[in-house]
Amino acid sequence: MSTSSNLINKAVDQLSKFPGVGQKSALRMALFLLKQEEIDTVELSRALITMRTEIKFCKQCYNISDAELCNVCKSPSKDQSVVCVVKDFQDVLAVENTGQYNGLFHVLGGLVSPVDGIGPSDIKIPELLSRVEKGEIKEAILALSSTLEGDTTEFYIAKKLRALGIKVSTLSKGIAVGGELEYADEMTLARSIRNRVNL
Amino acid sequence: MSTSSNLINKAVDQLSKFPGVGQKSALRMALFLLKQEEIDTVELSRALITMRTEIKFCKQCYNISDAELCNVCKSPSKDQSVVCVVKDFQDVLAVENTGQYNGLFHVLGGLVSPVDGIGPSDIKIPELLSRVEKGEIKEAILALSSTLEGDTTEFYIAKKLRALGIKVSTLSKGIAVGGELEYADEMTLARSIRNRVNL
Repeated sequence: MSTSSNLINKAVDQLSKFPGVGQKSALRMALFLLKQEEIDTVELSRALITMRTEIKFCKQCYNISDAELCNVCKSPSKDQSVVCVVKDFQDVLAVENTGQYNGLFHVLGGLVSPVDGIGPSDIKIPELLSRVEKGEIKEAILALSSTLEGDTTEFYIAKKLRALGIKVSTLSKGIAVGGELEYADEMTLARSIRNRVNL
Repeated sequence: MSTSSNLINKAVDQLSKFPGVGQKSALRMALFLLKQEEIDTVELSRALITMRTEIKFCKQCYNISDAELCNVCKSPSKDQSVVCVVKDFQDVLAVENTGQYNGLFHVLGGLVSPVDGIGPSDIKIPELLSRVEKGEIKEAILALSSTLEGDTTEFYIAKKLRALGIKVSTLSKGIAVGGELEYADEMTLARSIRNRVNL
């Protein structure tokens, strides 16, 4: 779908690169900008460019950060003895949003995947081990997806961390809270029976 | 939902102003930009600002345009004797995309709406009348929404244009092509019976 305006077409082409944004949505977004004041488009563009050029990775946990150390690592109220190991920034957000975790994070930036040629040293596993070797961390919670890659990564990290003498745990697997039993897949249901919790 | 990065939060705030984009989609869009090269964000921003600052209105039909005259008005292959009267730019697109119309347009930029205090001279009706007065246009197709405002506007324009001695028509109303009869509303079905077409 191309309009009679090349200016709009170019904007639509750019906007439709976003995930989940098709040509129609992109056109709606472009027309929305045309209906707003010029300053609104300038502010949008400025926010995007500033974010893209000034974003850093926290030098301690590799979370996305505005400064050398991210807000989680900087916070004095966080429990410095627990680290939650996650794949990426979105997972940090998901865990933080539960409000149930008050420790630090370690962002791997990927998962071990032999098929894709990604080994333990291609992601931030060596950095995790040297963080733990410093002695302050007493427990690691492995919060990785329950996939082949997630399980492989978890297995590898757990072995390495146990050798360093700290407590290692993983997220409990089972049926989702609020989930209907009949819709749970067999693997999940089997796991939730095996790991049943005493009442 | 706010992240630990103010840079991301600001970008998400801006992106979530788009229609149909919530905080979650906006965050996904921001993270997408972070995964792309810096130049991609720069190009996106440049396209949006260029579009917003350089867009013009065609001085003949008031369509959105890159130049003084829009691509439709400039095109030598268009039938200069027919004008399709529409509410806004999206309607031009919709009519053009049918591939069934090869004339000019006139974009009103709104509809007559006494309730909102919008009279005929608040939209581009005087400009339409003076275009027709020049004598080249022989037919006007009124392609307005079938709403109270659309009908009011159509009634007003039709009266004025007939007085100028040109042919005036409106879009046919009836059940949608491919539409199930049982789901058509009564008004539409009644109209499609009244305006039945001989076979």
